[in-house]
Amino acid sequence: MSRVQAGAAGRSQTLAGEPLARACVVGASGFAGALAAAILWVHPRVSLEAVTARTEAGRRLDDLYPRHRVPLELEPFDAERLAEVADVALVSYPHGAAAEVVAALRGHGVRVVDLSADFRLSDEALHERWYGPRGAPGLVGEAVFGLTELHRDEVAAASLVANPGCYSTAAILALAPLARQGLVADAVVDAKSGVSGAGRAATDRTHFVSVDENVSAYAVDGHRHAPEVDQELAALGCDARVTFMPHLLPLDQGLLASCYVTPTRPIDAADVASLFADFYAGEPFIELAAEPPGVRDVRDTNLCRIHATSLPDGRVVTFAAIDNLWKGAAGQAVQNLNVMLGADETEGLW
Amino acid sequence: MSRVQAGAAGRSQTLAGEPLARACVVGASGFAGALAAAILWVHPRVSLEAVTARTEAGRRLDDLYPRHRVPLELEPFDAERLAEVADVALVSYPHGAAAEVVAALRGHGVRVVDLSADFRLSDEALHERWYGPRGAPGLVGEAVFGLTELHRDEVAAASLVANPGCYSTAAILALAPLARQGLVADAVVDAKSGVSGAGRAATDRTHFVSVDENVSAYAVDGHRHAPEVDQELAALGCDARVTFMPHLLPLDQGLLASCYVTPTRPIDAADVASLFADFYAGEPFIELAAEPPGVRDVRDTNLCRIHATSLPDGRVVTFAAIDNLWKGAAGQAVQNLNVMLGADETEGLW
Amino acid sequence: MSRVQAGAAGRSQTLAGEPLARACVVGASGFAGALAAAILWVHPRVSLEAVTARTEAGRRLDDLYPRHRVPLELEPFDAERLAEVADVALVSYPHGAAAEVVAALRGHGVRVVDLSADFRLSDEALHERWYGPRGAPGLVGEAVFGLTELHRDEVAAASLVANPGCYSTAAILALAPLARQGLVADAVVDAKSGVSGAGRAATDRTHFVSVDENVSAYAVDGHRHAPEVDQELAALGCDARVTFMPHLLPLDQGLLASCYVTPTRPIDAADVASLFADFYAGEPFIELAAEPPGVRDVRDTNLCRIHATSLPDGRVVTFAAIDNLWKGAAGQAVQNLNVMLGADETEGLW
Amino acid sequence: MSRVQAGAAGRSQTLAGEPLARACVVGASGFAGALAAAILWVHPRVSLEAVTARTEAGRRLDDLYPRHRVPLELEPFDAERLAEVADVALVSYPHGAAAEVVAALRGHGVRVVDLSADFRLSDEALHERWYGPRGAPGLVGEAVFGLTELHRDEVAAASLVANPGCYSTAAILALAPLARQGLVADAVVDAKSGVSGAGRAATDRTHFVSVDENVSAYAVDGHRHAPEVDQELAALGCDARVTFMPHLLPLDQGLLASCYVTPTRPIDAADVASLFADFYAGEPFIELAAEPPGVRDVRDTNLCRIHATSLPDGRVVTFAAIDNLWKGAAGQAVQNLNVMLGADETEGLW
Repeated sequence: MSRVQAGAAGRSQTLAGEPLARACVVGASGFAGALAAAILWVHPRVSLEAVTARTEAGRRLDDLYPRHRVPLELEPFDAERLAEVADVALVSYPHGAAAEVVAALRGHGVRVVDLSADFRLSDEALHERWYGPRGAPGLVGEAVFGLTELHRDEVAAASLVANPGCYSTAAILALAPLARQGLVADAVVDAKSGVSGAGRAATDRTHFVSVDENVSAYAVDGHRHAPEVDQELAALGCDARVTFMPHLLPLDQGLLASCYVTPTRPIDAADVASLFADFYAGEPFIELAAEPPGVRDVRDTNLCRIHATSLPDGRVVTFAAIDNLWKGAAGQAVQNLNVMLGADETEGLW
Repeated sequence: MSRVQAGAAGRSQTLAGEPLARACVVGASGFAGALAAAILWVHPRVSLEAVTARTEAGRRLDDLYPRHRVPLELEPFDAERLAEVADVALVSYPHGAAAEVVAALRGHGVRVVDLSADFRLSDEALHERWYGPRGAPGLVGEAVFGLTELHRDEVAAASLVANPGCYSTAAILALAPLARQGLVADAVVDAKSGVSGAGRAATDRTHFVSVDENVSAYAVDGHRHAPEVDQELAALGCDARVTFMPHLLPLDQGLLASCYVTPTRPIDAADVASLFADFYAGEPFIELAAEPPGVRDVRDTNLCRIHATSLPDGRVVTFAAIDNLWKGAAGQAVQNLNVMLGADETEGLW
Repeated sequence: MSRVQAGAAGRSQTLAGEPLARACVVGASGFAGALAAAILWVHPRVSLEAVTARTEAGRRLDDLYPRHRVPLELEPFDAERLAEVADVALVSYPHGAAAEVVAALRGHGVRVVDLSADFRLSDEALHERWYGPRGAPGLVGEAVFGLTELHRDEVAAASLVANPGCYSTAAILALAPLARQGLVADAVVDAKSGVSGAGRAATDRTHFVSVDENVSAYAVDGHRHAPEVDQELAALGCDARVTFMPHLLPLDQGLLASCYVTPTRPIDAADVASLFADFYAGEPFIELAAEPPGVRDVRDTNLCRIHATSLPDGRVVTFAAIDNLWKGAAGQAVQNLNVMLGADETEGLW
Repeated sequence: MSRVQAGAAGRSQTLAGEPLARACVVGASGFAGALAAAILWVHPRVSLEAVTARTEAGRRLDDLYPRHRVPLELEPFDAERLAEVADVALVSYPHGAAAEVVAALRGHGVRVVDLSADFRLSDEALHERWYGPRGAPGLVGEAVFGLTELHRDEVAAASLVANPGCYSTAAILALAPLARQGLVADAVVDAKSGVSGAGRAATDRTHFVSVDENVSAYAVDGHRHAPEVDQELAALGCDARVTFMPHLLPLDQGLLASCYVTPTRPIDAADVASLFADFYAGEPFIELAAEPPGVRDVRDTNLCRIHATSLPDGRVVTFAAIDNLWKGAAGQAVQNLNVMLGADETEGLW
């Protein structure tokens, strides 16, 4: 135990009255799951009742992540027990491993936000190409792609939300207003992510000495978030080629998508700005900026900060900055949960 | 004085026999000038005789830059005195301020490598648009654009070499083989630079707290290195639109240009690789890699490490990594100096 | 303006009922002042009514600090106007410049938490030695040294609180339990701070390239926080020699004080731990840990995380980690403000 | 293979005439071993003939470490084969695993510099307490502790050199002049290391996200380098208590030892400086500085940069900065090798 003074109450401590729902986080030992637990632990309308982990069961979460200060013990996964204590679950398992626990939880009637990719791609063949055969394929029909700003109504009614990838979130938000207007003839998304996006596994690639004072592209032959972007742009009526290229940066939390669009027709900077302002009017987590956003501007927030303009050479460029663990994972998961529960979408996220 | 034990000999200490030339560095208090002095101080064929600075005159260079260990005192600029002690000069003044000192040195017959932009753009109107009226316009005719790999023969004969910008160096090297083959229909260069590229001036932008854990685009409306890229690609027969976008990264030395090319005709990955291998055959400072390069791979070297391939979606992508202070500035300046002196091009650069 | 969508309401947006006090931040363009404004902007019991700045007046605070999202315009300082809109002021001016504005605010009856050093040292000669003649010496008598855990009752009644330095806060909290027991025969405090502690001024020392991949001691001949430590330990009955040595680290927010104490009598690790547990029992912002704390553990919190033990060689070692901008500056200022207002000490600080 | 253009010649390419010795590096896949290979690859008097690795055999070293550009293939360990091609070996195995290969190489008459701790502590009981039973105890008698500045003559004659730990190197160099004068009554060494000192193994502790924006002490109960410091100070006649405390910093290469000495008699700053100047007169890799050294000042060099002074409170403080991989490991190993071979001590190290 890392805290001499511990106050493990076993439930969230900032509840204002009766909770709207009791929640659990399945897979809370990874970066995204742990942050989801931390957000829920101080959520005013949701009571966090349990956290689970595959390999760290028995440890206290605030021992693994002192910074998050969630004094709960990690339990092994047990769908029946979780269904007793929780109405909703945030699942943060690796791709492939999530489907089974999601199915078990759904079998017990627990509503789920799944942070893995297991239910993001609705096309079965496409999913298989990138991830292999899907576990629990029968659940695909009920899954909603949880990019909240695009699918709010479906999320509200969903029993299973497939929370988008971090890269997909930024890229889609940066391109959606243009895509819906049929403005995208061709696009390049040069994306830059901090290391927390690579997960908690200690590898050569996440070793400090590999990343420090470095930057490089990776997954040049294709990254799994690319088909999510294609799927969502297609849903907006856009079938343009989008080249997606991820890069790893020497920072912890933060993701910037720099998007270069060849427009189908000339459009000036003011019209680009108007288009985005209209598209995102009233969105609590979209921040439109007059300057290119920095990832520091959104660190530890659920915001997506966007700058969209056009260049003298006719190219339309848009930049979207998010915190990959917040809007790119745990924050958006709670945003979706809020929508599912009929709560204010921003509850617990400021 | 930062060294109790000082051994200021007043000239390079690693000379192997009679030097090919006596050199000075004009403007040695900035990052690039100081590195140029450090390289020349241990250069086996060139004797460094003097270093100057505008505002730090009187200080020892190893007091300003302990790491470089050049025990010379910074002098005020005096063309006559420099012409007495030096045959060649590396000038590292800010844009606009360089032209005058270059003219003075040339007036005394000193051969010059100028690290500023004052003589890079041969088109007078273009120069004026980006930098205002050119100082010493009469010298443009004798200036050679010093991207060594493209202009080696002209550099060898030159009395004035305009050393390219750091971004331009990486972008041009990443695109030249495609450009010469008429393969570039359209291109995006998403460039990422470490902070040393922003120079030694302490500003809000170079403050540690501004850069740390951050990344953002800047100069969205146009960066001064873009016309250098256009000029050189045009010289190779390419007049395609090239959108150039710089980003600032939380690291010191390193620059990565990620280039996305829409080819004029389909070309597969193997042919892209062959094209680059042929174009750069025998080049001592070009390193072709089978994986995307990281800037750590070239830190503190004069190398440009390139990976070039094509994607399943038809896009050709090339990545060029350099150290912005070496191949992007001082290293290439010495490479050019070696060529001018008829020395082995790699002398003093390993 | 950096936000296209702006919602400047002119007062805090998270108030729960009638505020306990109306506040202003004087000197909100620096790191500490801006954070103080950000904390107060979402404080549930205090209404932020105005922010001022000496050189940035007229700009919006969320333009200077997008991350803080305080949509107020920086005003020039005007004590009369501030006294009309605010009952309390947090002053974050440089040392020497603060005394005058504090005096003006006090003259209008405004209660003040001063983040500068102008009123920290009660001994006039000592103050003069480190800072020169004190401005507004007549106010010293009413100033309370605002290390909340040591002076809570005096702070509650105070009209003027001198908020401690960041180093002092960590060092004093790490040594106080030992000092009060007469256990300190001799001590070394090796302190390590992130760059935000050096302030917003862009200098050679805060340039990214100076700090990145570096660490060094500074102010070897004496740092101004040392006499604060001596003063507070003396008040606890300890007059031992304490050697204090600050170091600058390549990180943004975070401060670690590693303290090496030669005890006056042997004491084992368990007794050291008990001593600290007793001393800090019930303290909401002191976290005692079984392992050496990391500054990440307390980043963006008002916590001081402490590990205290004794070594086989008899030395007692204690480590205190804080966020230099929170517990080391703006956070503790609000903690003191809460105490002054009779609010829960933790209001607005989680 | 990471280089399309490869030039694996199988031996060093910068040899000036007949080599003084043929060398191999045993354990070249770790950070220190790889750097040792890189230094020897361009060493003008030593020919690098083979590199080995336990788990990466078959890979090219320049694939693992592109930056070092050593185009040799890693071989499995085979003492007989190595003895055929090499006269000297640098061994960089983990503690405990090194003794056996050192014994095998010595059995074939190969002179060895061992970078592990297996032969550093001459006292058998002390070694066993920190590391367990020693492998190859019969070799201890011939081992020389390779802190070159203190044991140059013994190193010159040695067949087996135990290269010191990185922390020990900095701490001993910072304290030795005081220790030899009987000036150390009591000392604290607060040491700060970059992450490369923790080795290449990917662990929770070396994960970028654990280290970034963090600093903490570790191994509070005792670090294995402490007895090396005690042993060497004792050899200089000093048996004072030295409390050693390591900290991990968010940087790659660099180590700073901040030493706080209670002197046995008062000594002023000028006398401290003189003492160090005398002790280290003529040392090519010791740099005495008038200001506290930063680790950037010595990055990628074999230098130890020291500042030593005394404070107004009577404490003597000394700071020693090294690159933990150079003077703290591979650089000093080559320095020792040069001494063993009768070469200029600085050959291949600038």
